[in-house]
Amino acid sequence: MKCRGGQSSTPHQGIDVFRSETEFVRWLQRHTPTQGTGLRLGIGDDAAVVELRRGHELILKSDLSIEGIHFLRHLHPPRSVGHRALARSLSDVAAMGGTPRYVLISLAISQKSSRDWVEQFYAGVLALARRFGVDLAGGDTAVVPDRISIDVVVAGEVASRKAIRRSGARPGDQLFVSGRLGLSALGLLRLKRKANRRVQGKTMDHAVRAHLYPEPRCALGRYLSELNLASALIDVSDGLSTDLAHLCDASRVGARVWAERIPGPGDLTRAESHSFDSMNLALHGGEDYELLICVPRRKASQIAPRVCGVPLQWIGEIRGAREVSLVLPSGEEKPLEPGGYDHFRK
Amino acid sequence: MKCRGGQSSTPHQGIDVFRSETEFVRWLQRHTPTQGTGLRLGIGDDAAVVELRRGHELILKSDLSIEGIHFLRHLHPPRSVGHRALARSLSDVAAMGGTPRYVLISLAISQKSSRDWVEQFYAGVLALARRFGVDLAGGDTAVVPDRISIDVVVAGEVASRKAIRRSGARPGDQLFVSGRLGLSALGLLRLKRKANRRVQGKTMDHAVRAHLYPEPRCALGRYLSELNLASALIDVSDGLSTDLAHLCDASRVGARVWAERIPGPGDLTRAESHSFDSMNLALHGGEDYELLICVPRRKASQIAPRVCGVPLQWIGEIRGAREVSLVLPSGEEKPLEPGGYDHFRK
Repeated sequence: MKCRGGQSSTPHQGIDVFRSETEFVRWLQRHTPTQGTGLRLGIGDDAAVVELRRGHELILKSDLSIEGIHFLRHLHPPRSVGHRALARSLSDVAAMGGTPRYVLISLAISQKSSRDWVEQFYAGVLALARRFGVDLAGGDTAVVPDRISIDVVVAGEVASRKAIRRSGARPGDQLFVSGRLGLSALGLLRLKRKANRRVQGKTMDHAVRAHLYPEPRCALGRYLSELNLASALIDVSDGLSTDLAHLCDASRVGARVWAERIPGPGDLTRAESHSFDSMNLALHGGEDYELLICVPRRKASQIAPRVCGVPLQWIGEIRGAREVSLVLPSGEEKPLEPGGYDHFRK
Repeated sequence: MKCRGGQSSTPHQGIDVFRSETEFVRWLQRHTPTQGTGLRLGIGDDAAVVELRRGHELILKSDLSIEGIHFLRHLHPPRSVGHRALARSLSDVAAMGGTPRYVLISLAISQKSSRDWVEQFYAGVLALARRFGVDLAGGDTAVVPDRISIDVVVAGEVASRKAIRRSGARPGDQLFVSGRLGLSALGLLRLKRKANRRVQGKTMDHAVRAHLYPEPRCALGRYLSELNLASALIDVSDGLSTDLAHLCDASRVGARVWAERIPGPGDLTRAESHSFDSMNLALHGGEDYELLICVPRRKASQIAPRVCGVPLQWIGEIRGAREVSLVLPSGEEKPLEPGGYDHFRK
């Protein structure tokens, strides 16, 4: 029994999505293929039971995706909501140098949701899970009167003592970043402004796709861990300025980044470049899920321009003084303040 | 960056709880002692990294606790909300015969929450975690304009191939239940009716406590797993009638339960017994987090009346015919329909 009798302000009216929890669980079981051999017991029991490989440690991460905060019903198709929710957690496992193995989904469905929304959401989760060899192992469900709220939990593994922390950066380490920064933020702005698609350049197409269907860098993270190349690693989820500050705080160091070397979202049409500030997006836009990598100076030459299919770009270096600064094309150096999203800030 | 620019219907105004995510994470780190030796990396990195014991499998469970559905702000003190949210997941691990080890908390705080609410919530989580040797390993946080929403994830372990499933019940197995049933539902009714505390009997005191601070049966679950005594196991979270139906469905069997043998909430005062239907509460009231245990007939004599400090009561048996029925004191037998809570039902 839940507190059903007492919710006068939030009457529980049920939805037409599934007739019962049992029906929902059976539907989910039918659509959940198991991939690995480690899943001993999946959806339908009190809890999931899984195996890890010997000599490995367990990586755990949960990530909230809440309607109105992490996604907007009118902008994000349900397939994208599922993809993005899982991608966030996969990216956290990538940033430890690990391999994701299992996922649990806690889904508070809105009474206003359609069954199609729920099916497309899971289709988005499961398509991405399949590509990364991840099994849906369980979760929880509830029905709420208002906003949809999702918590994705990923369990992964990493060879013992091989996890790459945020806190290992040392003065002199070289800073690299994968892919392009600011693409996702650009894609979100484009979606909000409903620009004319016919005059949209190639970069903008990439940006919208990068925002709706980001690609976690798991292979790259694992490569860095296996070859012992990185002293510290973090994924760019809140924006370069914010995540670099997190890494420097954890490592008790500072950093210097060259603006010209930061791989921005790419070439914009003339009309687009009037509307969007690429450098600002590259510095502060989040949800790119690229990796920010610290490499000891003596190993920097081992970083190829392209690893696991992803371009890597040198952008700066770690220093002992605990300030993070940006070197402008003019040579001028100015402090780089965290400009990313903070849930607690007004 | 989150979708902050687009939430016209849900303006993000921040709260006075913590000034920033960094402040919140630091506060949490200060209040999070680590107990086990298996926690390699806790709160503050991209993900948690933990170790499992060799020869063990990993148990994973997530459980939602949502304001207005699983708890009510005016009835449940924040310490109880934290305790109950964690107890649900610990109970799931108990129902697998496992040992809980780590917990992640995803907390969507309401803008209307006070810092005191958040602190008391975590105090409730951490006090229970400490008693069960569980480390807070991580989680996620967001700020929402309306209802508080919590997802608790517990990772536990169980000796390889020793997890007790719902699906192992066979005809002839004997059914036992731990503790008392209906206490939590009785306590909730009592809290809602604001009865006069001075005329309240001892049972009602127990009931209120059982509702606010339920005790997961982890030691009992582990005992059943280690001694290989149970063919199937489930925790009574949705009510006996509903959870017995779950177990029978998973095992493709039926059951017969004797009403007189079900341990109800206990003796009520005359006034109380006019207001509350004990048998109805024992059959359909949920959130007792007791264990419903199937024991092969040849092992039934090994079940002591009290195990790990918890009374065990024989209540019935499993049968091949796929019906669940209740034998009344008159000898009459009638179908026992699931009467517990279902999120999808109107």
